[in-house]
Amino acid sequence: MDFTSAETTHWIAAPFTAVQFDDAFWSPRIQVNRERTLPIEYRQCKQTGRIDAFRLDWMPGVEPVPHIFWDSDVAKWLEAACYSLASHPDAILRAQVEEVIALIIGAQQADGYLNVHFTVVEPEKRWTNLRDAHELYCAGHLMEAAVAHFRTTRERHFLDCLCRYADYIAVVFGAEPGQKRGYCGHEEIELALIKLYHATGEARYLNLSRYFVDERGRQPFYFDLEALARGEQPGDFWARNYEYCQALVHVREQAHIAGHAVRAMYLYCAMAELAGEVPDAELRAACERIWDDLCGTKMYLTGGIGPPARNEGFTVPYDLPNDSAYAETCAAIGLVFWSHRLLQWECDARYADVMERALYNGVLSGVALDGETFFYENPLASRGTHHRQPWFGCACCPTNIVRLLASLGQYVYSQRGDELAVHLYAAGTLRGSLAGGNPFTLTQRTYYPWDGVVTLTLDLEAPTALTLRVHIPGWCRHYTLLLSGAGAPIEYVMERGYAVIKRTWQPGDTLVLQLDMPVERMVAHPAVQHDQGRVALQRGPLVYCLEGVDHAESVSQLALPAQAPLCASFQPDLLGGVVVITGEAAAPNPTDWASTLYRRQPDAGTHRVPLRAIPYYAWDNRAAGEMAVWLVQCE
Amino acid sequence: MDFTSAETTHWIAAPFTAVQFDDAFWSPRIQVNRERTLPIEYRQCKQTGRIDAFRLDWMPGVEPVPHIFWDSDVAKWLEAACYSLASHPDAILRAQVEEVIALIIGAQQADGYLNVHFTVVEPEKRWTNLRDAHELYCAGHLMEAAVAHFRTTRERHFLDCLCRYADYIAVVFGAEPGQKRGYCGHEEIELALIKLYHATGEARYLNLSRYFVDERGRQPFYFDLEALARGEQPGDFWARNYEYCQALVHVREQAHIAGHAVRAMYLYCAMAELAGEVPDAELRAACERIWDDLCGTKMYLTGGIGPPARNEGFTVPYDLPNDSAYAETCAAIGLVFWSHRLLQWECDARYADVMERALYNGVLSGVALDGETFFYENPLASRGTHHRQPWFGCACCPTNIVRLLASLGQYVYSQRGDELAVHLYAAGTLRGSLAGGNPFTLTQRTYYPWDGVVTLTLDLEAPTALTLRVHIPGWCRHYTLLLSGAGAPIEYVMERGYAVIKRTWQPGDTLVLQLDMPVERMVAHPAVQHDQGRVALQRGPLVYCLEGVDHAESVSQLALPAQAPLCASFQPDLLGGVVVITGEAAAPNPTDWASTLYRRQPDAGTHRVPLRAIPYYAWDNRAAGEMAVWLVQCE
Repeated sequence: MDFTSAETTHWIAAPFTAVQFDDAFWSPRIQVNRERTLPIEYRQCKQTGRIDAFRLDWMPGVEPVPHIFWDSDVAKWLEAACYSLASHPDAILRAQVEEVIALIIGAQQADGYLNVHFTVVEPEKRWTNLRDAHELYCAGHLMEAAVAHFRTTRERHFLDCLCRYADYIAVVFGAEPGQKRGYCGHEEIELALIKLYHATGEARYLNLSRYFVDERGRQPFYFDLEALARGEQPGDFWARNYEYCQALVHVREQAHIAGHAVRAMYLYCAMAELAGEVPDAELRAACERIWDDLCGTKMYLTGGIGPPARNEGFTVPYDLPNDSAYAETCAAIGLVFWSHRLLQWECDARYADVMERALYNGVLSGVALDGETFFYENPLASRGTHHRQPWFGCACCPTNIVRLLASLGQYVYSQRGDELAVHLYAAGTLRGSLAGGNPFTLTQRTYYPWDGVVTLTLDLEAPTALTLRVHIPGWCRHYTLLLSGAGAPIEYVMERGYAVIKRTWQPGDTLVLQLDMPVERMVAHPAVQHDQGRVALQRGPLVYCLEGVDHAESVSQLALPAQAPLCASFQPDLLGGVVVITGEAAAPNPTDWASTLYRRQPDAGTHRVPLRAIPYYAWDNRAAGEMAVWLVQCE
Repeated sequence: MDFTSAETTHWIAAPFTAVQFDDAFWSPRIQVNRERTLPIEYRQCKQTGRIDAFRLDWMPGVEPVPHIFWDSDVAKWLEAACYSLASHPDAILRAQVEEVIALIIGAQQADGYLNVHFTVVEPEKRWTNLRDAHELYCAGHLMEAAVAHFRTTRERHFLDCLCRYADYIAVVFGAEPGQKRGYCGHEEIELALIKLYHATGEARYLNLSRYFVDERGRQPFYFDLEALARGEQPGDFWARNYEYCQALVHVREQAHIAGHAVRAMYLYCAMAELAGEVPDAELRAACERIWDDLCGTKMYLTGGIGPPARNEGFTVPYDLPNDSAYAETCAAIGLVFWSHRLLQWECDARYADVMERALYNGVLSGVALDGETFFYENPLASRGTHHRQPWFGCACCPTNIVRLLASLGQYVYSQRGDELAVHLYAAGTLRGSLAGGNPFTLTQRTYYPWDGVVTLTLDLEAPTALTLRVHIPGWCRHYTLLLSGAGAPIEYVMERGYAVIKRTWQPGDTLVLQLDMPVERMVAHPAVQHDQGRVALQRGPLVYCLEGVDHAESVSQLALPAQAPLCASFQPDLLGGVVVITGEAAAPNPTDWASTLYRRQPDAGTHRVPLRAIPYYAWDNRAAGEMAVWLVQCE
């Protein structure tokens, strides 16, 4: 085995509580998330009965029936609320949180079990259908909420409740005689148990996570056995085989990304962390193989993943249709989670690049600028019929994005002893202390993503030797790195996409990073049939799109002349302030096409029309209409 | 009503028996059709039990169970065999035909009923499920076979058998009290009854056809009533509604093409003929509306129709995906049938153009050059997995193409009194007589479709005043029309896409038509998303494609430079002799794409490679591989 000492090489993400945003891009979103989205989601959980279901007073015949997913929606809202409270104390929110927690604790059974549906609706079916019933998935989300609550409040009552549940689960599941050798059809508990381990220091939770991960895909398939025990034929599984839930092949042998996208992301999050906690070259190699397959053949330009609605997951390489793209918000969020965990291995910019791509595009598109409506699906083209909704019967996406934005700070920096790494650019500060305990403040000043100039100022109590790793985004071709006032470039080496600056810093030393940020025409691998002959506009980390509201013509029919100049300009009054890209497009002459389906090319004329592209994340915030990311390029 | 006198304006297609092919394109195909395809299909019908099923000796429990479609396969083979016998007497084939006919006649029940499945397998279900069971569809194909047999042999036994069946059907179905007000879920009998009317002169068959057509789509829906009578819920119909079988809206009110493509074509064939037989402006307007919708928004460049496998039919306008194109061979054949009938109304080249397009491309692709294997689906792009098959469980396509090729002559010319029209170009002769009884021979000499020069020689007994209408194909931009030896252009007027030459012809007068036939880059309507930024190569009536076997690179990744010259050259040893189009394509540099999914466009290089395109109809006759019709156009 290839032993890598995790003790010394593993990076630790700076906790979001140590990071303060003070920028024009994320700060307003975090504020809207707190002030609008959190209350809205509480109300939805309340009004739809999700919260009160924990009272366990449902009676047969009453509608709605507590759904097997419901616990997870409440848990994710709760997790987000606790993150928010950590940086913004709020008495009303705190009261809501405690009220919900009291209900949840009250719903726990004597043996530690805690699941509304399988307590009041189908108690006889507890643990009889791990494949489909999401029991351990809900348990995982409750654990994440409990950890968030403990971290924010340092109170243990909710954490203890979930530890009791986890301890009960550890009795029921495992490889010992008398235990069920099962695992959940929808991964989640694996990563949650690692969080529980970090919060409690109890290695048994790490071990249980490792059991769930390593049991996955072993034969005979547990899902076969439990199906037979239910009197069903395993072959009747609607998804046909267990690739859908990453359980067809043992996790260590999986060679490519497959199945349901969110499930895959959550599993691989746990694998990435396990491979970091205890060196495990096999798990690590599996993560890398699967990552390469995903990001090299199955990811949208937006960081969206999972093209078809059919399996909410993966198909074959280069199958990336735009208008039917499912690209679930949760899946892009899962990709941020996974990328972030992989990034902690050794600070490799491959992971930071994908994390950034997903965050600014396929994730952020999932919520309206006003924080009140949501996308479940994030297509890269629309005929005008796709719009954000206030809520969904399956509400995983709204509750996922609210917890992500409430804890966004954790993705910006990492630390390893006296080394600091900057992964993302956003004005604000990181406060922490170095290995020896000396406090520091790292301040970013930037208009990123609208502009590529970033200054990084280190405030220290005294001159200090430390290494700063600065992410040079993969989208950037030309950059400069200077020490402010020094007049000469600073010395650094490039390591895995980071500029590594090892020196003794004077208090107040300021680094100036200038990332050239031209408008780029992006092309996809030639095997991506749906993007052939097309380009997408990208500037910095932002993918752009054309929206119907900005064009008199059908944007799906506009072509971009190969030589047309494209300009970027900041428009403060548009969509909360965005850089738009303007230029000329070629539009077909309608008169050439009256009742004609095919023509000789010379007979099909075009005329030039103004083109205006906006950031993809901001579409569908004005008048409803068409949208297109990939544009045909013409002469 | 807009009364148009059918007596004087209606064109009559020259019978295929009057047309002799003597060309290098169709003659070899007709020969292969006769010598290879016909015997192969007889053998398939024999070996699969389709023929012997007419012995009615099937017993419960025996496999295979005579299928509800089987009668139609035998009938279509029989129809083709009779066409072939008309021009090529063949004792063995004739014996097979009579043997099969004897079996069919022997299977007729005392009341005239004639259907294997519902006589031996489910006799209790006779006429209980018109929606799904294809009973009247099979009846129609038997009628077409019987008419073909009668026309070839002038013997009446088979025709009489089907007249008895038709008479029995006329008792069972109709609008009179005690009759079933039904019609078939799969249209066919409507057009067959018109053929029976023409063969027998019995107007009751025309009336029965008109009943079936005009009953279609009336409410309450017969399919609802019969479903309820079977104890089923009408809403459980898998296709959801009767648009699938053109019965959701009354035929006279249908505004667009919808539902199953073959069903639609067969129905509209009958409508086109009914509107010609007895002037009926409503039916005619419906045909025109539906035709415009089909050919203006839902037809592939190849004349293939019906994009998805799901309903083997139509979707929304401009939805024409290439690699998943179903474009059933039968549907393109049905389009030829319909176009041909519409063409007889007033010799409008719109219909001749589509007939030609479908025939040379989407129909002809349905059979291999050796006549031994068949396409059911005719996609416009393939990753290399689509290949012709020797037979299909549902064998409608092979038996459809064999009857089309065996009677191909009927599509070339029409006559109306002393007017002759030439719709298609192929070396050979038409023999006939004019209104006054004077015989004539019209001889075509041409290498069409490889070359656009056509000479038309009229052999007459004496100088004769007659009008010749010469189709100027829609694909042709420049042409000349001369009287050979006259040295000056001949006088003509253009009417609906035909050059109309009204003059007194001397015996042996020869007209020289020269159609310029450059290689054209065709583009699709800008709303056809799958063809955006792409061109297809067409020369004359032939659509071209790239095949894997001719290229070292993936043809799906080749792009065609906008300015690259394209040359056409005849290759006598390739694919039975074809004109190929050669030029240069741009292929992606593989090294630019190692494990990269997206790049800046300037970083994605290409290199020039030779391009060779072959006629679409001839693909998949060499090594298996990729195929592409629509090519991305690049700078």
